[in-house]
Amino acid sequence: MDGSALRTLDWVGGAGGAVEMVDQTALPAAYTLLRIDNVADMVAAIRRLSVRGAPAIGVAGAFGVALAVQAHGTRGPAFDDAVIQLREARPTAVNLARMVDRTAARAAEGLEAVLAEAAAIRDEELAASVAMGSLGADLVLELVARPDVRAMTICNTGGLAAVERGTALAVIQTLHERGRLAEALALETRPLLQGARLTAWELDRMGAPHRLLVDSAGPFMLARGEADVVLTGADRVAANGDTANKIGTFSLALGARHAGVPFIVVAPESTVDAATPDGAGIAIEDRGTDEVVSLAGVATAPDGTAAANPAFDVTPAELITAVVTDQRIVRLDQHQTPA
Amino acid sequence: MDGSALRTLDWVGGAGGAVEMVDQTALPAAYTLLRIDNVADMVAAIRRLSVRGAPAIGVAGAFGVALAVQAHGTRGPAFDDAVIQLREARPTAVNLARMVDRTAARAAEGLEAVLAEAAAIRDEELAASVAMGSLGADLVLELVARPDVRAMTICNTGGLAAVERGTALAVIQTLHERGRLAEALALETRPLLQGARLTAWELDRMGAPHRLLVDSAGPFMLARGEADVVLTGADRVAANGDTANKIGTFSLALGARHAGVPFIVVAPESTVDAATPDGAGIAIEDRGTDEVVSLAGVATAPDGTAAANPAFDVTPAELITAVVTDQRIVRLDQHQTPA
Repeated sequence: MDGSALRTLDWVGGAGGAVEMVDQTALPAAYTLLRIDNVADMVAAIRRLSVRGAPAIGVAGAFGVALAVQAHGTRGPAFDDAVIQLREARPTAVNLARMVDRTAARAAEGLEAVLAEAAAIRDEELAASVAMGSLGADLVLELVARPDVRAMTICNTGGLAAVERGTALAVIQTLHERGRLAEALALETRPLLQGARLTAWELDRMGAPHRLLVDSAGPFMLARGEADVVLTGADRVAANGDTANKIGTFSLALGARHAGVPFIVVAPESTVDAATPDGAGIAIEDRGTDEVVSLAGVATAPDGTAAANPAFDVTPAELITAVVTDQRIVRLDQHQTPA
Repeated sequence: MDGSALRTLDWVGGAGGAVEMVDQTALPAAYTLLRIDNVADMVAAIRRLSVRGAPAIGVAGAFGVALAVQAHGTRGPAFDDAVIQLREARPTAVNLARMVDRTAARAAEGLEAVLAEAAAIRDEELAASVAMGSLGADLVLELVARPDVRAMTICNTGGLAAVERGTALAVIQTLHERGRLAEALALETRPLLQGARLTAWELDRMGAPHRLLVDSAGPFMLARGEADVVLTGADRVAANGDTANKIGTFSLALGARHAGVPFIVVAPESTVDAATPDGAGIAIEDRGTDEVVSLAGVATAPDGTAAANPAFDVTPAELITAVVTDQRIVRLDQHQTPA
């Protein structure tokens, strides 16, 4: 993997190798590649959000199982414990546990089989990004009666979140490649500023016109008629279409409904969790006070200030126009359901 | 004025004196008093938000007229120009222009009359804060069927915004003084973080239990049932009740409506602008890119990123339960209108 690659996470060096990934915590100030050769470092990288985005952490977890096999062999308590640590590094996205389990199920066949499974997961995510971008762009152009589309988005759902191209940002990239994007409006996405740090960086890299907004301006900009569609990713889509995603997504969905603007969730099939009937069953991670009382490393509140910090929210299905996956368009506004 | 005073802005030194004010841009890291003895410095202090909040900048503008008289006498082009500069230091709040005009109208009577008028405006704002706190607390306790109230608020509407006690935060302070406040939930209020820097500081000073939230978490916390009421200030209330306030207020109002939680605007009568029929007539200041792409000199987005930065939004009257002034409660939910 080299600095010019669009792929943001991969396995390097074959058997006995390691994972290389763009350190997302260092962007946009620095483009830094991390080399991760053990499970503890992978868990730490996932927890501190050096790699983030549901599809990307699924791939990271899958390659993490290969690191577990390299360290502990294909069975036994140390291996089992490493797999559990990988599964539980983040609680909200279903991809992580699912991809770790899928890869670990190949462990009895040895390291090469585990690496092949993880690589297959990676390649599936890449193909899924291309498909989501195309299906999503088709739907947007069907719903928005303008030659050029102004698309609002939150958090980071590009190649950094999904190895390459991404989910919601893949739709924006596809619109841009088709010459149909007027402007992307990116929300900065407090507290960790994935929109300001990562999405603005990716939009700049793809040459797409864009402006940044503070999160709370999103619904008002929609009310003023400044965007034609909202596109978001998802950390988990429940069977009825209720969708867990970055905090602020629910607020944007309320704004889109008030403005009469389509609200489209873009996520791979692996994000659809048929075992979760609705949003009430989705655990919401609270990431604690520190992220809220500082911004870009600077204290923003008096010492000792407590915070509530739900990292995700749940957008009810009735506020979502459609869920676009790599395989299908589910029109929630026409009473279809994902599972 | 000394450092322990709750009064955050005042005239000191009688005729030939100056304005002293807490420098709100330095909080919470430092409690700094500014001495302002000329109009250009006052205009600069208002523009850079060393003093902010509609009532406070009204009082600052009124004392600014006294500075104009001290420098230029009671008439002539230099005096007129100074008055225009004060009037136009900020565009959205109606108080500033109104209080500058009211004080300037006394100029022909000399400096003592101008100072007396500005002091009267200050005292009226203090009395108004007490009245708003009391009327607002009564209304909250009537609408919320709980022994202890969990109140969400945005921006800073306390003594820093209104010389003493404030508007929406005066209601929270009054609930706390009556032993009826369970918790205040303060939104940080990007881009300038008045909630994190100022409201958390004021809540801590008054000993009220509180937690800080990123702005986009507000609507979701309401949906989860974590607050009983939303209390906000206003920069301008139109005749029909449409309300201009800090960006993010509209989004909170959408969240409150979705959650079935009362949404109450607290503002002095001087904020009600009968000459503006509805929100469409309220100019919204765009404060430019810098505030969005950085904090305290730390870049949060790639170099060259453009931003949209509406500093205020307009909440339509139909999303507002009531407007509480220092003189009355206007029940918008019962089809009353402010003017």
